Amino acid sequence: MLEMIKQHKTKKSEAADELTAMQTELIDLANAVKAAKIPVIITIDGWASAGKGSQIAKLIKYMDPRFYKVKPIRIPNEQEKRKPWMHRYWTKLPGKGEFLILDGSWFADTVKSYRYGAIDKDEYKRRIDDVNTFERQLRDDGYLIIKLFLHITQDEQKRRVKALAADEITKWRVSQHDFDNLKRYDKIFKKYDKTLTMTNTEFAPWHIVPANDRVTAQLDIMRTVTNAVKLACDAKEKGILCKLPEQFPTIKYKPEKFKLVKTKKLADIDMNKQLTDEEYRRLLKKYQSRLFELQNICYQKKIPVIVAYEGWDAGGKGGNIKRLASSLDPRGYEVKPIAAPEPSEAARHYLWRFWTRLENDGHFTIFDRTWYGRVMVEPIEGFTPKERADMAYLEINEFEKQLTRWGAVIFKFWINIDKDEQYRRFKERENTPSKQWKITDEDWRNREKWDEYEKAVDRMIKLTSTEFAPWTVVEGNDKKYARIKALKTVCDRLEEVTAER
Amino acid sequence: MLEMIKQHKTKKSEAADELTAMQTELIDLANAVKAAKIPVIITIDGWASAGKGSQIAKLIKYMDPRFYKVKPIRIPNEQEKRKPWMHRYWTKLPGKGEFLILDGSWFADTVKSYRYGAIDKDEYKRRIDDVNTFERQLRDDGYLIIKLFLHITQDEQKRRVKALAADEITKWRVSQHDFDNLKRYDKIFKKYDKTLTMTNTEFAPWHIVPANDRVTAQLDIMRTVTNAVKLACDAKEKGILCKLPEQFPTIKYKPEKFKLVKTKKLADIDMNKQLTDEEYRRLLKKYQSRLFELQNICYQKKIPVIVAYEGWDAGGKGGNIKRLASSLDPRGYEVKPIAAPEPSEAARHYLWRFWTRLENDGHFTIFDRTWYGRVMVEPIEGFTPKERADMAYLEINEFEKQLTRWGAVIFKFWINIDKDEQYRRFKERENTPSKQWKITDEDWRNREKWDEYEKAVDRMIKLTSTEFAPWTVVEGNDKKYARIKALKTVCDRLEEVTAER
Repeated sequence: MLEMIKQHKTKKSEAADELTAMQTELIDLANAVKAAKIPVIITIDGWASAGKGSQIAKLIKYMDPRFYKVKPIRIPNEQEKRKPWMHRYWTKLPGKGEFLILDGSWFADTVKSYRYGAIDKDEYKRRIDDVNTFERQLRDDGYLIIKLFLHITQDEQKRRVKALAADEITKWRVSQHDFDNLKRYDKIFKKYDKTLTMTNTEFAPWHIVPANDRVTAQLDIMRTVTNAVKLACDAKEKGILCKLPEQFPTIKYKPEKFKLVKTKKLADIDMNKQLTDEEYRRLLKKYQSRLFELQNICYQKKIPVIVAYEGWDAGGKGGNIKRLASSLDPRGYEVKPIAAPEPSEAARHYLWRFWTRLENDGHFTIFDRTWYGRVMVEPIEGFTPKERADMAYLEINEFEKQLTRWGAVIFKFWINIDKDEQYRRFKERENTPSKQWKITDEDWRNREKWDEYEKAVDRMIKLTSTEFAPWTVVEGNDKKYARIKALKTVCDRLEEVTAER
Repeated sequence: MLEMIKQHKTKKSEAADELTAMQTELIDLANAVKAAKIPVIITIDGWASAGKGSQIAKLIKYMDPRFYKVKPIRIPNEQEKRKPWMHRYWTKLPGKGEFLILDGSWFADTVKSYRYGAIDKDEYKRRIDDVNTFERQLRDDGYLIIKLFLHITQDEQKRRVKALAADEITKWRVSQHDFDNLKRYDKIFKKYDKTLTMTNTEFAPWHIVPANDRVTAQLDIMRTVTNAVKLACDAKEKGILCKLPEQFPTIKYKPEKFKLVKTKKLADIDMNKQLTDEEYRRLLKKYQSRLFELQNICYQKKIPVIVAYEGWDAGGKGGNIKRLASSLDPRGYEVKPIAAPEPSEAARHYLWRFWTRLENDGHFTIFDRTWYGRVMVEPIEGFTPKERADMAYLEINEFEKQLTRWGAVIFKFWINIDKDEQYRRFKERENTPSKQWKITDEDWRNREKWDEYEKAVDRMIKLTSTEFAPWTVVEGNDKKYARIKALKTVCDRLEEVTAER
């Protein structure tokens, strides 16, 4: 792509009127974006010395600073290294109506990590998949992503670096490394170009800015941004996804097809499994102490463990989580209860609140209800349109795949009880003063939709039981059996994983 | 205090029934705490090898893991060092009905920082003030703070360290440092004892646990915690602050008396100040470029800058912030718009959402509305009882003092307009389509309470204009004058500060 870019020069006087007009227009557009509740991400990548910083300053100069955030992307710090590599992008997502402007992005992150040997070629390719997946997921959620690459020629870069080094005030910004890179222009060119091509998708196309001349670049950026924002507002009004103009042919992108493992329907589960008190006590002791040891090894090997709990109301999730948690060193896990999203959560992609809740590697993150609410309660209760919720099967598989690639071991428990058992437990809760807070009208209402929920659960288990993150259906009519099954599942798998790594 | 502690031994069999009873009771108490919406903090400090980790595990063994978090406190990491030292405690605060259990705390942090020379004696004393202030602020907000110190004798410590070192499995946990510290027991004893005494307050008294014998310690901890929680629930029901039993005489604590600078009432401000367009353009250019340079120096010297904006509706805060922000390198500041608190914010101390929003040192944090809502909108609109809001004058001065000690330069702008000018602007907003979103019925309602607000503002300015964080009233009838005044105020002060440091 880069070789097609023509550099040219624009006189400041010729551009002045148009620039002022667009800057003024951008103020109104920012208000329109706020009114239309569109979250906007603008990434500014490009060559060293291409002028990213000053172009950002010009872009936002007239915008209301309450509507945007500017974040520089640098080499990941120690905290960031303990999370999946995309974590720092997910956690920075803007809310509806807000602009996030990134100085450098996941693009530069990927190219540079590869160039400097932090990742190998395979990982480089996988990261490109991650990037495309990320951008597609955001676009599907209504995010507007404007990707700008500031391109300068080799001569221009040489001139700029020398000028910086010659100036008393700016020379501290230039290192030997910059001079060395000048000589590697051709090599870097190829890497940039290849990566640009591989991430030039129909849903998040690149816009390459000829940046040898600063005024030309500024005009081009302003035009691209104002145009994109207008298109997004139009699309939003029409209720369709926004399509940005393609400067270059985009790649054929296909999401990964996940291989699924065979699963059973809930109706086919044998619900009669149980344990005697004696067996329960013996096995509880055995698996709890085994898990404590395994946690220690995971901590030392920095293996992240994610445990996701879903199940029927009154299924016994709480007690099950308790037996798991109380095996563990309390400094090494956290339980995340998931309720209705807060306003700041509802304003972002639904996976945001799970990304932001991930503990460091070596730690256990235990979710009490999860991202699977997206395909159960949300469509059934009408919080999310069915077609949108259906996209989550893929999105969730992608999410869990990325966690797996980070090194995470993922457990997903569906705590299953039958309808009679639920009735017994609801009644018991109503009749026990200390348990009355646990039963509400909503529980009874949900119960009326049992069949609808059962269908949704069957579908969820079928479509998201990947090889790397399969569901475990836990027979829960007998709480003791259920607790041991969950504990044993975690122990057996961690035993394997810790032996391998 | 420590020399008064008698170590004794309890047979496991003798304690078993009582322990089981208390563990069961704690389950119910945790539910009661949740129902009563009391936030609980339990800190576990003590000697090395005193058994903090295993006592925490026993304490929470039967609790519902969704109701508590356990956080270990270690040497501050790179991220934490860029914030005020109490920042990592503030940001971890539990919400109403939740338990936070800290393995190590601000107590150990203070003692160790002093012992290992990270802070000098003066700073050590100031930190003790910070600790007492922090605990008093939390208690006043309804937090229950249970502070436990696990005490073991020199012989017992020696025995434990040797036993750990002799065991193949645990010997990695013992370093030369631990052996060296064994010899320094007396010295450390004095430091612990002194710091315990100085932080043994009526609102957050210490409980020293004789921990030579693990069963005795466990019993003592369980009794202390269950008793404290019961007292807190009782107090909450009666609507009074909880008072915990004092094991030792507490110190006489007096909050700092802040020296205030002389201020004017709003009615005495000359509101006729203005600038011509020409003066405005010249001065805007001058101060914006000066501020850009000053920001650079602040960044290099790691000076945090906090800018707090308050003012009448339609006072011109937005435009004023914009002129300030657009002077700055966008990667070095963030604007924080403050609206009504989200549920997770409302569940915590009102200062929590400001502590969590602080940018790193070297950066500007610009607040569009601030913690001063506590003494204006909250009591006037009835969100906070007047007596509780009145405590905020002290709390806010303390907060700003701590920011100042971190190194922050604090600017507080009250953008002032008169009632006629507000009317003109409201009407203009109503009559300009692109500005209509900026005017709501609420603005008109607030306007009816002008006199009440003016009294509150006068009082706020009078009581929180400390020498280190004085208010600047900005005459805002002329927006141009107001913008230059704010810019000039920031520049002049930063000029001084950067020259000194």
